[in-house]
Amino acid sequence: MRYDFGSDNTAGMAPAAIQAMIAANEGFARAYGTDDVTARAADLIRQRLDADADIRFVFSGTAANAIALAMLAWPHEAVLAHHAAHICTDETGAPGFFGSGVGLIGLPGASGKIDPVALMSALEAVEVGHRQPVAALSLTQSTEYGTVYTEEELRHLIEPVKRMGYGVHMDGARLANAAAGGFDLTLIARLGVDVLVFGGAKAGANCAEAIVLFDKSLARRIDNRLKQAGQTASKARFLAAPFLGLLESGAWEDGAAHANLMALRLADGIAAHSPFGLAHPVQANAVFAALPPQAHQRLNDLGWACYRFDDGSVRFVCSWATQEQAVDDLLEAIAGL
Amino acid sequence: MRYDFGSDNTAGMAPAAIQAMIAANEGFARAYGTDDVTARAADLIRQRLDADADIRFVFSGTAANAIALAMLAWPHEAVLAHHAAHICTDETGAPGFFGSGVGLIGLPGASGKIDPVALMSALEAVEVGHRQPVAALSLTQSTEYGTVYTEEELRHLIEPVKRMGYGVHMDGARLANAAAGGFDLTLIARLGVDVLVFGGAKAGANCAEAIVLFDKSLARRIDNRLKQAGQTASKARFLAAPFLGLLESGAWEDGAAHANLMALRLADGIAAHSPFGLAHPVQANAVFAALPPQAHQRLNDLGWACYRFDDGSVRFVCSWATQEQAVDDLLEAIAGL
Amino acid sequence: MRYDFGSDNTAGMAPAAIQAMIAANEGFARAYGTDDVTARAADLIRQRLDADADIRFVFSGTAANAIALAMLAWPHEAVLAHHAAHICTDETGAPGFFGSGVGLIGLPGASGKIDPVALMSALEAVEVGHRQPVAALSLTQSTEYGTVYTEEELRHLIEPVKRMGYGVHMDGARLANAAAGGFDLTLIARLGVDVLVFGGAKAGANCAEAIVLFDKSLARRIDNRLKQAGQTASKARFLAAPFLGLLESGAWEDGAAHANLMALRLADGIAAHSPFGLAHPVQANAVFAALPPQAHQRLNDLGWACYRFDDGSVRFVCSWATQEQAVDDLLEAIAGL
Amino acid sequence: MRYDFGSDNTAGMAPAAIQAMIAANEGFARAYGTDDVTARAADLIRQRLDADADIRFVFSGTAANAIALAMLAWPHEAVLAHHAAHICTDETGAPGFFGSGVGLIGLPGASGKIDPVALMSALEAVEVGHRQPVAALSLTQSTEYGTVYTEEELRHLIEPVKRMGYGVHMDGARLANAAAGGFDLTLIARLGVDVLVFGGAKAGANCAEAIVLFDKSLARRIDNRLKQAGQTASKARFLAAPFLGLLESGAWEDGAAHANLMALRLADGIAAHSPFGLAHPVQANAVFAALPPQAHQRLNDLGWACYRFDDGSVRFVCSWATQEQAVDDLLEAIAGL
Repeated sequence: MRYDFGSDNTAGMAPAAIQAMIAANEGFARAYGTDDVTARAADLIRQRLDADADIRFVFSGTAANAIALAMLAWPHEAVLAHHAAHICTDETGAPGFFGSGVGLIGLPGASGKIDPVALMSALEAVEVGHRQPVAALSLTQSTEYGTVYTEEELRHLIEPVKRMGYGVHMDGARLANAAAGGFDLTLIARLGVDVLVFGGAKAGANCAEAIVLFDKSLARRIDNRLKQAGQTASKARFLAAPFLGLLESGAWEDGAAHANLMALRLADGIAAHSPFGLAHPVQANAVFAALPPQAHQRLNDLGWACYRFDDGSVRFVCSWATQEQAVDDLLEAIAGL
Repeated sequence: MRYDFGSDNTAGMAPAAIQAMIAANEGFARAYGTDDVTARAADLIRQRLDADADIRFVFSGTAANAIALAMLAWPHEAVLAHHAAHICTDETGAPGFFGSGVGLIGLPGASGKIDPVALMSALEAVEVGHRQPVAALSLTQSTEYGTVYTEEELRHLIEPVKRMGYGVHMDGARLANAAAGGFDLTLIARLGVDVLVFGGAKAGANCAEAIVLFDKSLARRIDNRLKQAGQTASKARFLAAPFLGLLESGAWEDGAAHANLMALRLADGIAAHSPFGLAHPVQANAVFAALPPQAHQRLNDLGWACYRFDDGSVRFVCSWATQEQAVDDLLEAIAGL
Repeated sequence: MRYDFGSDNTAGMAPAAIQAMIAANEGFARAYGTDDVTARAADLIRQRLDADADIRFVFSGTAANAIALAMLAWPHEAVLAHHAAHICTDETGAPGFFGSGVGLIGLPGASGKIDPVALMSALEAVEVGHRQPVAALSLTQSTEYGTVYTEEELRHLIEPVKRMGYGVHMDGARLANAAAGGFDLTLIARLGVDVLVFGGAKAGANCAEAIVLFDKSLARRIDNRLKQAGQTASKARFLAAPFLGLLESGAWEDGAAHANLMALRLADGIAAHSPFGLAHPVQANAVFAALPPQAHQRLNDLGWACYRFDDGSVRFVCSWATQEQAVDDLLEAIAGL
Repeated sequence: MRYDFGSDNTAGMAPAAIQAMIAANEGFARAYGTDDVTARAADLIRQRLDADADIRFVFSGTAANAIALAMLAWPHEAVLAHHAAHICTDETGAPGFFGSGVGLIGLPGASGKIDPVALMSALEAVEVGHRQPVAALSLTQSTEYGTVYTEEELRHLIEPVKRMGYGVHMDGARLANAAAGGFDLTLIARLGVDVLVFGGAKAGANCAEAIVLFDKSLARRIDNRLKQAGQTASKARFLAAPFLGLLESGAWEDGAAHANLMALRLADGIAAHSPFGLAHPVQANAVFAALPPQAHQRLNDLGWACYRFDDGSVRFVCSWATQEQAVDDLLEAIAGL
């Protein structure tokens, strides 16, 4: 089975990431995030975002998202998100677990982007004691369906939420791909996001994500919170090192640019040389093709791992490690279905 | 500041561990623990324990312990542990968080080992609705105070607990040091432990621990449980690789043997060349010296990171990376206090 | 404002219930549910259900349901229920709170009854680590839309669930109305329900519900569980007394029969003398009328409290206290809209 | 067995309480706390406390305390309390359950009152990531050992806590007895308590307590919070009615004064006519006698329910319902042991 396109987490660590781990493995270092590698990696993230922020490195995007939401919503409150967001469909109810019952309200919207009309309607719903009222909005950039919100689109979603005094979380598991797709990272702070999960794993790290707290009041006792939640690294330098390597070298952006380019190549090929349509615009590193179940099955049988999504289309994801030849091989397979 | 003896997590990754990570970083791999590296590392752990068991790799010992306890106790029940156990004093209440209120009942006992009389008394306490009754026992091997339970001692603690139908958890963050100290790993399954946390970080991995489920009924839907708890690695091969490297090469045992040897050298030196006594027997990789506060302060001022424990003594920990010269330097500093 | 039809919890306590409270208020009694009143009330419930079962009285249906589900599903699992079930729409996410993240999967079905095809499809879904797999089914009898499951219908829902080894919960907040509507209470145990919430408040008690554990293994340490969850009555006799009064006198059934009769009178009147249709069959004590928003508003303005449901219809609920004259007054108001 | 002195929850409802329930049982009423009885009862509590505050009625003191603490402390934080406080020893870990892991730190102090030196030491402890730092103080008035804090004592405990920006909770399950013992209720708000649990059950209600939120920011979405926690009464008038009856008639104070008087009579009798000493000053409605185990056993055998506490003494509690003759009967039994 070939896993090249099954997900962007089937790829290994990018060279810059693993080299930084090797480099960090020198001598003794203070534990629990008080080391130099951690400090330098955090600085580089602040630079990229052009913002002062408290930053912590954690192991898991699922945990990072769920902990962020638990900061923004009480158990008796709910978070708005696209119904296809990772927190709604792929994290085994982690927001409810870390948040002790925090609710999720799924909103519709084309190609993974929340429909602002649906958002407004959710914000304007009359509060009643027997339902979980809205406390926060969760956005995904780039989205689960491989699209990238524009500044304007984000503004229309974030502003009404902030006006209500609610919090905003951004799941940036594929933030590098959004950036490579033209999204200006410095907008995140300026538009009012309170907590960002700055993605590492899908950008070439191993399992490593950064929680970025623009609202520094949320950072109070964050180390206790993370320790209790099993997200504090004792040998913290190794959690930060991949970020340091990727960001110092520019591989964080370069790898994502490569991934997006491969996705475009794949999308163009499908459009040009197969009978199958694209289900969503290709703005980042994922391609969704309208493969009927039988075609999907045949492709799997040919040895290509790929998955059907809730919208019925089949996803192919590219990464820093995707090779042109692999794209062409896949295209040939698809053309022959 | 020198962190050599501050903890065993100030050391880096052992060569065998990081080399295995590099080796694992080849091509694409299935995500979420279905890869070969994960399978081979789990096999090696089963071999070491001479037991069939379900095994999962997680990022954090705190999470591993807390998730294990949440399998063994309901929120309205409690877990017995030595009052100085890591779960009681160093994990920010994680058992209560992951277990939604699971209680901890701290038991006394010399040098980190639970007093069997205190255990029996806790087991025989009359159950009342308004207190959390006992559901499980948590053991630490080697203990927080650097001692190693004998087979006999474990038997006297585990048997009455199993007779009540309760569960047994073993925190093996320093299991390698216990093994190097003479503890037979195959006893763990035979004595009836239900869940073991098989330590990686302190044995030369980065942040990586293995949850070993001897009671396989506990493994039902374990992948959902771990995913929800933020302890599932997408790029799972990198979590298992350090174990593979350490166990394949024998560095897991060798590093621990070295650490224990260095601890003995340190302990002997303190006993012979300083006015300070040892607070606990040295059976693994930690040395506890009866340093008065001023002497402790002076040692810190001299640049040696080391911490005072709840029993009033000061701890020095050795690891695979501890150098003889460092031991001798520290001994010189202590002698001169 | 007239609250007669706003809900069945706008009614007071039935005479038999309050008289039993007065009778129970004699002298001193053992606390925490070890008193005679509690024992006798539990016996009467077992008689009604023709089943041996462990029974506990609690204050709140929301808590009773949520605690029951927390017995049947781990945090990383989910419960199937009709999407309009009270646990899904009216309990502020209590199952997630008491169950530390337990998921709810809403199923479709006409008039509040779960569609067995949808159920089968949910049961047959492939389990994946990143979603909460099914652990239990929750049924409501009578349903939120005032219908009553037949034996046949229940069998078709319960059997496939039990075959999977999953649990079954029944929310019987309006079980008396189901019974008055022809439902044989002894079926509950025989069909394999594991936990029943036997309704008191809507049947003429104050706030009091009984948790009935047919699967007695679930009753282990139930008193600890309830105490921790804030559902143990110190002065327990007063929680059981209304049940004792209602069941000893037969008022539990008689009041529900009256309520159902009044609902029929109302439904017949709406059908015969108004332009508005009935949205659902009237099989218990609730009537759902297809009132357009303006008509609903006018009815509210006329002083009749009544609420629009998620299906767009407006609900009127009858209780043991509903008076014929009130029904006729309401019918007149509706006819004149 | 005679339960007169086993606890103050073995007594029934005081006449004023049950009469108010009967009076409230007239016609239909809005549900969920929007009724007149609820409003009037809340007004009377505000009057007694001479403070503006948001007030909600709940079923259970355990829930009331745990919910209050969950407002004041995150899961990764801890609450300071006397080690013998009800929340520490008699609520089955409810603070950890409702607070998803909130920690409790037990403080010493004679006769149930927190030692201010121990408090200061806890407040001054250095914060570290691996322990739960203090977020709030919980006080009990009157205490578990039947003593009453003076204004001065409370000031010395509350002031340093408020200075740190932490919250203060008061468990007033026996607040009526404290008031009858000379404690000025208007001090509670003035001294800076944030959340008070104003006791009903032990003062002559059935199971009913009031949560009083002096810090009104804590009241945001309180109705959602309580509903989710299973502490919202649908037929709310019956939860508030006992308070209305007790407070309107003055029976809340009078019953407590009677209870305290009976406790004094009992204490004086024990001191004068038995060989047993009193273990604690008698300032409210509880008497603790230094009965050796055998004497305690004989008293139980004679038919008097009473319990040994963690300090080794045996408790006798008086209530509004305690009769002089019963006190004299008990004294005779004790004298003859």
